[in-house]
Amino acid sequence: MAKELIVTTRLHDYPIVIGENLLTSFDFSPFIKGKQILIVTNETIAPLYLQQLIDNLPTDKKIATCILADGEQYKNQDSINQIYDVLMREHFSRDCTLIALGGGVIGDMVGFAAASFMRGVNFIQIPTTLLSQVDSSVGGKTGINHPLGKNMIGAFWQPRLVLADMALLTTLPQRELSAGLAEVIKYALITDLEFLNWLEKNMQGLVSLDMSLLGEAVLKSCQHKANIVAEDEFENGRRALLNFGHTFGHVIETHEGYGNYLHGEAVAIGMVQAMKLSQKMGNVSLDDVARVEILLKNANLPILPPKIAVETALDLMSHDKKVKSGQIRLILLKTLGDAYITADYDASSLQQVLQN
Amino acid sequence: MAKELIVTTRLHDYPIVIGENLLTSFDFSPFIKGKQILIVTNETIAPLYLQQLIDNLPTDKKIATCILADGEQYKNQDSINQIYDVLMREHFSRDCTLIALGGGVIGDMVGFAAASFMRGVNFIQIPTTLLSQVDSSVGGKTGINHPLGKNMIGAFWQPRLVLADMALLTTLPQRELSAGLAEVIKYALITDLEFLNWLEKNMQGLVSLDMSLLGEAVLKSCQHKANIVAEDEFENGRRALLNFGHTFGHVIETHEGYGNYLHGEAVAIGMVQAMKLSQKMGNVSLDDVARVEILLKNANLPILPPKIAVETALDLMSHDKKVKSGQIRLILLKTLGDAYITADYDASSLQQVLQN
Repeated sequence: MAKELIVTTRLHDYPIVIGENLLTSFDFSPFIKGKQILIVTNETIAPLYLQQLIDNLPTDKKIATCILADGEQYKNQDSINQIYDVLMREHFSRDCTLIALGGGVIGDMVGFAAASFMRGVNFIQIPTTLLSQVDSSVGGKTGINHPLGKNMIGAFWQPRLVLADMALLTTLPQRELSAGLAEVIKYALITDLEFLNWLEKNMQGLVSLDMSLLGEAVLKSCQHKANIVAEDEFENGRRALLNFGHTFGHVIETHEGYGNYLHGEAVAIGMVQAMKLSQKMGNVSLDDVARVEILLKNANLPILPPKIAVETALDLMSHDKKVKSGQIRLILLKTLGDAYITADYDASSLQQVLQN
Repeated sequence: MAKELIVTTRLHDYPIVIGENLLTSFDFSPFIKGKQILIVTNETIAPLYLQQLIDNLPTDKKIATCILADGEQYKNQDSINQIYDVLMREHFSRDCTLIALGGGVIGDMVGFAAASFMRGVNFIQIPTTLLSQVDSSVGGKTGINHPLGKNMIGAFWQPRLVLADMALLTTLPQRELSAGLAEVIKYALITDLEFLNWLEKNMQGLVSLDMSLLGEAVLKSCQHKANIVAEDEFENGRRALLNFGHTFGHVIETHEGYGNYLHGEAVAIGMVQAMKLSQKMGNVSLDDVARVEILLKNANLPILPPKIAVETALDLMSHDKKVKSGQIRLILLKTLGDAYITADYDASSLQQVLQN
């Protein structure tokens, strides 16, 4: 049985449909605008799912495809230009639909291409990783990396539909499943202690691909994200909480080169660092920190950062989008299940955390 | 005496301030966000006005500059990348302000850079041409060209302030002044017969740089554009009327190569073609066509198209953003001062017009 969650945005409302074997059975017609469809996917996903998707699309449409290289290192302007080139060569009009079939990298890029082609066209997300199902399917953040920083170029743009098919997770490498669980755990940590308890109880099942449990975790995560985003679509306040662990995590990703750490792995380490700083600030306890470390380990996630000089880390942090008039702002926890954003923390405590 | 027009958009309201010598006297402080300013201009404008602008900006800001090559042929991804590179190198945060000092090309590019850097930052337009004062200062259209089509990549993004300084027009080449007058005449043709009479009476003064008349023409044009845009910010309906002459004009610009015809010159020719088709459709009279041709000539504008094969022209038209499910839609006149959009025109009449 498919579950549905309606996401409300300023541009329009759209459903996230969560279930099993949706790729081959869902009726896309109501969500497709115009007669031209471009499916963008990558070299890993195309042989697995592209033809299945094409076979399930309405037969009266012109369908073009664009298959990009797979990996965060290709989340750049060149890939966007490849999408534009197909759209232009195939005479796509404003009245068309783009479909993103892939993980967060594909979703973010196709979203940005959809936002910027002819100043905005219709698009559909079919996230093929757990991370993209729980993260990029809500919020309208699209974009690419700049050589000097992650996600620096982009736009806010909303899909018309998100289809989260749990069956697609069966071909996902275990390491990527765990990376997705990092973001699931994040929602629990910043906003929902009860969900944290549930995750601790069910982590074994989640890790071993129990579809029903995964569907519940995706729904809960998307609900939390949707609630926060609805309050603050353009990230002026509360939405920043979603970046818990991310400022630290971005440092790792940038320093180690895109693609060497999975995003969720870097976030897992970043969350531990943010927890440690929260503990040094007198908020959470050492036991809380240990509890989260155990949960992350049970999700097969790393918890220790690679070696990065403190000054380098601080310099990389200064590029973060949350920097306001030169001040690095961080997301910390008051208690488990309750996060806040602040520029008011002890600089030496931050340095200690970065030194570890 | 500066005049002010408030433009209402879904994102925010902003003023267009119209007057003389504003660059050196206007107080920018209320419109600047954060402590970092990037001024983007081009090699022609920089030696004339860049230092004057810097001298008039608040002294407590960090000011960076980016000087691009001048011309429509540089309205591309490379130029956008140059802007991104300065922003990243100089550690600009989301809390910054971009200033576009230049014509429509600079304005469109800086607008798109502002829309896409960190998914959207503050920006100010200081249009230095008549065309950009009356055209790109209202409507939020930003973007760049693709090798296969004009303005194909972009976003809707609104400035915080537009400063239209008539004194800047004194250094504008006569040919560019005329190109701007083409858009002024367009507003009269699509929506305001009285304004058309006023233009016929005052064209001599406008062409010879009467600042007061120019200020009136800019104000009237911006008002007309603002009214139409307020009704239809995302170009689903009435806003398309602003493209009167543009579908024909784009064919000329694309075919002859960007930069060989000024945009306003191509639009002037395109408006004559649209008038002729309107006449063939039984709307306006031959006298009306002749009247408009005379006005355009008095503004020192071309009225005859270069030689382009009809099939080539039709193919280029099929790339137009107004194409809906394969049908080329055109803006025609019912009468002078009253335009409409339609896909219902005689194909052979269109071919005759393109053959001329």
